[in-house]
Amino acid sequence: MSGGLPEQALADWSAEQLARTEAALSEWVGAGAPRDLGAAMRYAVQGGGKRLRPLLVLAAREAVAQERPGAHGAGEAEPLRAALDEAALRAACAVELIHAYSLVHDDMPCMDNDVLRRGKPTVHVRFGQAGALLAGDALQALAFELLTPEGGAIPAAVQAQLCRLLARAAGAAGMAGGQAIDLASVGQHLDEAQLRHMHQLKTGALLHASVMMGAACGASGGVALSGLARYGQALGLAFQVVDDILDVTQDSATLGKTAGKDAAHAKPTYVSVLGLEAARRCAQNLHSDALAGLAACGLRHTERLAALADMVLLRSN
Amino acid sequence: MSGGLPEQALADWSAEQLARTEAALSEWVGAGAPRDLGAAMRYAVQGGGKRLRPLLVLAAREAVAQERPGAHGAGEAEPLRAALDEAALRAACAVELIHAYSLVHDDMPCMDNDVLRRGKPTVHVRFGQAGALLAGDALQALAFELLTPEGGAIPAAVQAQLCRLLARAAGAAGMAGGQAIDLASVGQHLDEAQLRHMHQLKTGALLHASVMMGAACGASGGVALSGLARYGQALGLAFQVVDDILDVTQDSATLGKTAGKDAAHAKPTYVSVLGLEAARRCAQNLHSDALAGLAACGLRHTERLAALADMVLLRSN
Repeated sequence: MSGGLPEQALADWSAEQLARTEAALSEWVGAGAPRDLGAAMRYAVQGGGKRLRPLLVLAAREAVAQERPGAHGAGEAEPLRAALDEAALRAACAVELIHAYSLVHDDMPCMDNDVLRRGKPTVHVRFGQAGALLAGDALQALAFELLTPEGGAIPAAVQAQLCRLLARAAGAAGMAGGQAIDLASVGQHLDEAQLRHMHQLKTGALLHASVMMGAACGASGGVALSGLARYGQALGLAFQVVDDILDVTQDSATLGKTAGKDAAHAKPTYVSVLGLEAARRCAQNLHSDALAGLAACGLRHTERLAALADMVLLRSN
Repeated sequence: MSGGLPEQALADWSAEQLARTEAALSEWVGAGAPRDLGAAMRYAVQGGGKRLRPLLVLAAREAVAQERPGAHGAGEAEPLRAALDEAALRAACAVELIHAYSLVHDDMPCMDNDVLRRGKPTVHVRFGQAGALLAGDALQALAFELLTPEGGAIPAAVQAQLCRLLARAAGAAGMAGGQAIDLASVGQHLDEAQLRHMHQLKTGALLHASVMMGAACGASGGVALSGLARYGQALGLAFQVVDDILDVTQDSATLGKTAGKDAAHAKPTYVSVLGLEAARRCAQNLHSDALAGLAACGLRHTERLAALADMVLLRSN
C-alpha cells in the first residue's frame, strides 16, 4: 500500500529478525542474576508482543548498512560490518528491555493495577510487588549493560551514542516524563497539542529512539538522519493514535487486553479529543509523513521501514 | 591514622568538591522534566547524606589525573584535562543518582515501607507511590544521560566505559541483585560468605564502581587499576560492616535513622553473624586492605582516597 514490500516478504524478514532477537534475549536476560530476580526478569521479557521496537532498530540498521562512506572504500569493511550488526542486535534488545521494564512498573498496583498482560499474570502477581519493582529496575540497568560490551569490537563512539539516545528516550524528557504527564492527566481535559506532547514522550520517544539507534549502527549523513528522524517521529505518534482507535473499535479478545479501558479510566485519547473519524485521518496523515521522511532520507534500502509503517497503521491489535 | 591527610585537609577538600557536586545536581536534576516528576526527582536528591560516592569518584580522578602517559608528553593536555574533570563530575553525579533512586524505591511500601529518611518524609509519602516509582525510574535514566553529553569534548571511550561500569554496578549482578538477595534473606540464616556476597552486590558494587569510574576519567595502567579495584572492593565492604556495627552501637539521633532496625527486621548482619568484636576486627582488616590496595597502585596522589577510607571506618553515622 505504500511502496513497501509485499506483506509476505516483511513476514519472512520479521520472523528471521525476531528469531535472532529472541535468542539474544534468552541468552542475556537474567544471566548472572540471583535466582528469583533472574526468573522475574525473564518472565517480564518472554512471550512479549509484537517486538516492534527491535524490528525498527534492525530495519533502520539495514537501511544505513550499505551507506557508510568509509575511509577505506565504499562499504563497511567486514570486521566493522559484523560489529555494527552486533551493535544493532544489542540495541534491539536494549530498547525492548526498556519497554518491558516500563510495562512491569506500569502494571503495579500503585500505577494501573493490572493483573493480566497478554493473557498471563503480570509480574507483580507472579513475583510480588517488591520482586516486580526490582526486576524492572534491573531490566533498565541491563539495557545499558547490553549497549556497552567489553572487548572493543563495537566502536566506543557507537556505544556512547546508543546509550545517549536510549537514556534520553527512557528518562524524564521521554518515556518516564510521558508517564508522569499521563498520571496527572486522568480526568483532565487535554487539547490536541497537549495530548500529542504526552504521547510523543510516553510512547513516541522510545519508538523514535529505536529508529535512531538503528541508524547509529552505521554512518549516515545529516540528510539521512533527519529523514529517519521524521519517519521515527511520525511513526511513534501514529502508533499511539492507532492504539486509541483500536481501544474503541476492537474487542478484548482481538486486542489481547481489556478493550474500552481508556474511557473507563477517563483517560484523554485521540478518539475522545478528535472523534473517531478525525483520529483515523490523523493516523493516515502521520503514516504519509513517515513515508515522506523515508523518501527524503536518500537511502536505498528503506523497504522494511516502509513495511513496518504499514504494519503499524493496519494492525488490529 | 593511615598516612592519609590531616582531618581538616579532607574536610576542606570535601567541602569544595561537594559544592561543585551540589551545584551540578541542582542544574541537571529535573531539568526538562514535567513539573511533578521534576519536583520528585529533585526532592529525592536534595539534602542527601554524606555523598560518599561522588567523593570517591572525584578522589579517584584526582589520583589518576597526573598520571596519564600521554602521547604528547607527561601530563594531560589542557583541553583534555578539562574534559576529563567534567567527565568525573558527571560520573560523581550519576553514581549519586543511582544511589538516590535505589533509596526512593527501597523506601516504598512494597519494600522497606519507610516514611522518614534523614528526618524528611520519604518520596512516596510526599509524591505518592506512582510518583516515587516514576521518579526513581527517571533518576536511573538520568544517570546515563549525564554520562553521555552531546558535543564530543569527553572522549567516547570514556563515556562508554563510565556507562559500562555504572550499568553493571546498578544491575542484576550488582545493586539490584544484592537487594533481591536481601529480600530473600529476611529471617534466613546466612553464613559469612553469603552475607559478604549479598553486601558486595547491594552496597559494595556501587562504591567500587565509584572508584573505578573516577579512575576511568584518566588513563592508568593495569597495576594502578588493580590496586584501585582492591581499594574499592575493601572499602565497599567495610562500609557495610561499619553500618551493621553502628546499627547496634548508636542511637537513632546520631544515626539520623532508626537504630536497631536490622534486628527488628530479622535481617542477617555482620554483627549477628560474627558478633560485635569480630565485626570490628573485620572492619579494621578491610580498612588495612583498602590502604594496601592504594600502596600497590603506584600512584602518587592517593591521599584523599586514604582519608576517605579513614572516614568510612571512623564515622559515627
